[in-house]
Amino acid sequence: MGNFRGHALPGTFFFVMGLWWSIKSILKYVCKKQKRTCYLGSKALFHRVDMLEGIVIVIMAITGIAGEQFIAGGPYLTLYKEGQWNQLPGWHHCTMYFFFGLLGVANILCFTISSLPVSLTKLMLSNALFVEAFIFYNHTHGREMLDIFVHQLLVLVIFLTALVTFMEFFTRNNILLELLRSSLIILQGTWFWQIGFVLYPPSGSPAWDLTDHSNSMFLTICFCWHYALAYAIIGINYAFVTWLVKWRLRRLCPSEVGLLKNDEREQESEEEV
Amino acid sequence: MGNFRGHALPGTFFFVMGLWWSIKSILKYVCKKQKRTCYLGSKALFHRVDMLEGIVIVIMAITGIAGEQFIAGGPYLTLYKEGQWNQLPGWHHCTMYFFFGLLGVANILCFTISSLPVSLTKLMLSNALFVEAFIFYNHTHGREMLDIFVHQLLVLVIFLTALVTFMEFFTRNNILLELLRSSLIILQGTWFWQIGFVLYPPSGSPAWDLTDHSNSMFLTICFCWHYALAYAIIGINYAFVTWLVKWRLRRLCPSEVGLLKNDEREQESEEEV
Amino acid sequence: MGNFRGHALPGTFFFVMGLWWSIKSILKYVCKKQKRTCYLGSKALFHRVDMLEGIVIVIMAITGIAGEQFIAGGPYLTLYKEGQWNQLPGWHHCTMYFFFGLLGVANILCFTISSLPVSLTKLMLSNALFVEAFIFYNHTHGREMLDIFVHQLLVLVIFLTALVTFMEFFTRNNILLELLRSSLIILQGTWFWQIGFVLYPPSGSPAWDLTDHSNSMFLTICFCWHYALAYAIIGINYAFVTWLVKWRLRRLCPSEVGLLKNDEREQESEEEV
Amino acid sequence: MGNFRGHALPGTFFFVMGLWWSIKSILKYVCKKQKRTCYLGSKALFHRVDMLEGIVIVIMAITGIAGEQFIAGGPYLTLYKEGQWNQLPGWHHCTMYFFFGLLGVANILCFTISSLPVSLTKLMLSNALFVEAFIFYNHTHGREMLDIFVHQLLVLVIFLTALVTFMEFFTRNNILLELLRSSLIILQGTWFWQIGFVLYPPSGSPAWDLTDHSNSMFLTICFCWHYALAYAIIGINYAFVTWLVKWRLRRLCPSEVGLLKNDEREQESEEEV
Repeated sequence: MGNFRGHALPGTFFFVMGLWWSIKSILKYVCKKQKRTCYLGSKALFHRVDMLEGIVIVIMAITGIAGEQFIAGGPYLTLYKEGQWNQLPGWHHCTMYFFFGLLGVANILCFTISSLPVSLTKLMLSNALFVEAFIFYNHTHGREMLDIFVHQLLVLVIFLTALVTFMEFFTRNNILLELLRSSLIILQGTWFWQIGFVLYPPSGSPAWDLTDHSNSMFLTICFCWHYALAYAIIGINYAFVTWLVKWRLRRLCPSEVGLLKNDEREQESEEEV
Repeated sequence: MGNFRGHALPGTFFFVMGLWWSIKSILKYVCKKQKRTCYLGSKALFHRVDMLEGIVIVIMAITGIAGEQFIAGGPYLTLYKEGQWNQLPGWHHCTMYFFFGLLGVANILCFTISSLPVSLTKLMLSNALFVEAFIFYNHTHGREMLDIFVHQLLVLVIFLTALVTFMEFFTRNNILLELLRSSLIILQGTWFWQIGFVLYPPSGSPAWDLTDHSNSMFLTICFCWHYALAYAIIGINYAFVTWLVKWRLRRLCPSEVGLLKNDEREQESEEEV
Repeated sequence: MGNFRGHALPGTFFFVMGLWWSIKSILKYVCKKQKRTCYLGSKALFHRVDMLEGIVIVIMAITGIAGEQFIAGGPYLTLYKEGQWNQLPGWHHCTMYFFFGLLGVANILCFTISSLPVSLTKLMLSNALFVEAFIFYNHTHGREMLDIFVHQLLVLVIFLTALVTFMEFFTRNNILLELLRSSLIILQGTWFWQIGFVLYPPSGSPAWDLTDHSNSMFLTICFCWHYALAYAIIGINYAFVTWLVKWRLRRLCPSEVGLLKNDEREQESEEEV
Repeated sequence: MGNFRGHALPGTFFFVMGLWWSIKSILKYVCKKQKRTCYLGSKALFHRVDMLEGIVIVIMAITGIAGEQFIAGGPYLTLYKEGQWNQLPGWHHCTMYFFFGLLGVANILCFTISSLPVSLTKLMLSNALFVEAFIFYNHTHGREMLDIFVHQLLVLVIFLTALVTFMEFFTRNNILLELLRSSLIILQGTWFWQIGFVLYPPSGSPAWDLTDHSNSMFLTICFCWHYALAYAIIGINYAFVTWLVKWRLRRLCPSEVGLLKNDEREQESEEEV
């Protein structure tokens, strides 16, 4: 996928995924806080959504693998041809997609077979990310300095996401860890776009000088700005979802909203102790 | 042990070990879940099995050391000969075997002397793996690029296994961590085989080009495929063991299976809360 | 900010911050220990102080950014000029200030909006420090050996502070972790001063030889002495605050001080068990 | 201290320290297990021993610093002489001793002032070790390959000890972690001796070839054998201390030994559940 679209596609996927996970986490958190007063988020609903998520991930993974393999000029499932390896970068991408596919399968299994522990999905996500980081780390042999640098930053963010997910595997239901993971996934998504713009500028733009160190120094802070953007998105999400839940609550059970407010304050003061 | 057989042997050992540990972990997990309804896995049985495991490991370690030392052309316990070190790689392997032997001894002691804490075995396993990773890290000085690369991947998987085992030392009875460790051990086993195939292709195959970077890029994804294979093996194991336990239960105490099912569902809903 | 003042300013900021945080932590700890006997530290007061802290940090961050941008010869918000990046080091510093500004905003939000978890401030501090370490790590391309070395030590202390803060995010109210963080922040502050003295000796002093390795070996131990100094400051702080609290207690409610002493001894013996 | 004695002295100190800590840990563990039946280890006694330990450490540190400074040809407290740094390696060693001195002071303070948390000693030990590792890491600039290698292994073991001690800071009273720390301290002690033998062979032995890589491969496994030795020492210690406590118990209160045995078995079966 050595072109702009090949980086924009996974970028969009990760961006949407991060956005969706942040919304889900916030919704769960807000609903749990207010479950004593009004019925809003049912457990069964969340379960069905998780399973749907799994199905979507599996479909995306299969699409990704098929796209890599059967695109015009792709490897067409041939690994070794005429005495040399056949389009290894494409196979690298397929392997990454495959491990995300495994995550989707684990998601589906966890919410169909009751005896499986739920944290399996976290472990599989962490695994898929570690594998992705590992492959990208060995992906850029012999390329230009700036090409290697942007991929190193990608490896950094993927590795950190994998670490945070692995921590989530141990400490369940920590809203801040979940949002941290979401923000890192969003960062990965927008960074894929950035890589696309740097390495394959869309028609019209001049190419970047891949050996200029001032470019790498700019991309260092650019990476941080992407991160700040991810934070802003999460923040807006939080404000919006909280407002939405309160607005729906007021419509559904207006008499209890006053109670709810008191309730919140009590909870808060309990936590402070 | 610079030949194919010298890599296939430890590979087989680790593969069998990983397979066995995964079966044991799953069996313990499934039995614990159903202990309320029917007697199946006795603690005493598991203890005897653990001790047997220790004895087997000690025997394997002694065999390994003896094989390294007294094979035709081996060092025959001579460390320093004619003004230089005598066959240091062999001594490296012996040292690794020795630390696995210590693990076996710890296993035996832990289940004979009651005052010793049980997590000692986990610590010793973690230790043996850290030592193995440390020695392999300093093992490949002055070799070819691909030789170093495959050993680096070996060090990576050993180091990760040691880390996961060290985490197990702190959090006891986490089924997923145990299975993660088993899968990494299986990966180590199959990777030993892969190293054998790469460095010492069995008679008939052409040798790999040890300086070609496309080979290292292929082995990167090959490593991931091995890992996916380990996951598949664990998954099949899980399905098989669960089915076996349920089938035996149905034969032994058929009247309670219905009860069991309800019980499982209750447990599940408790955990969800 | 390539001059002495540009390093002295953030140095002073971090030094004051570390000092203030150490005082706050000790005060909280001492007050909590003695809350059963006499009213001294009110929760509402601490909340207001935390919010004030947030406002101060935001103001400092804005000042820092404005100073970097609109100083004589600064970039004046122009990122790209005449075919090349415009004063990237200044933009690097602005990005760091911006993330500390985010910390201030989080501080303010956490203590105004009650539904936000309090540990968000810890996460944001950890984030700001990680970003700072990341930027400083990519900050010194192509400079002299000693320049790189002193900045590497800076990255080390910032990274460690970030790690400790991240641990605090998981384990709340551990006084020693809080003091460890404070001491590392003080170290960062004094180290900024040291960097200023090494790279831009104030008028009159001869310049350091930036390529001499014996200088780097001296700065290694100098770094440790700074750390010892930070420890001494924390120790004196602890003694002073404890004495102050006891002295005020004696004046406010003299009859209970005798009781207090017994109480302390009891607590101690409880903890020992 | 660039001679054999300069490495043998700290080696002996760390060896004795590790031995003593392992004995103390085992004694505490065994006494705690049997406190229900017979009075043996009093808390006050352990406190006095800890304080004595602190005093000994302070004395050792002062001796070390004085020895470094006022030995024939030492720096005599002069840091900068004739336009260059004066004997920096000696100042490096003094700084390390100073941080161990701080550990001793913390030990004394912790058991005199009751309001200080006890885990402060663990934090200070961890700190002293991190500082030691940091200084040794920057200690060997421009030396021979083997000289650097043996010091790298030293840094490795010191860093691991510091990490384990930092973990102890979080999880109190884990006997295995304490013994792991003790074994690593013993390893550090014996490794100091090994460095002495390698770099400054006592009179009569031929010098090692500091550029020969087979020497570094031998020292790799030699390091592991030292570790195995540390394990053996800890094991013998454990057996001896346990036997001693039981023997003294039999003499002091023979009627309760039978009871004790049953008691142990019960405890064990409780822990298994």
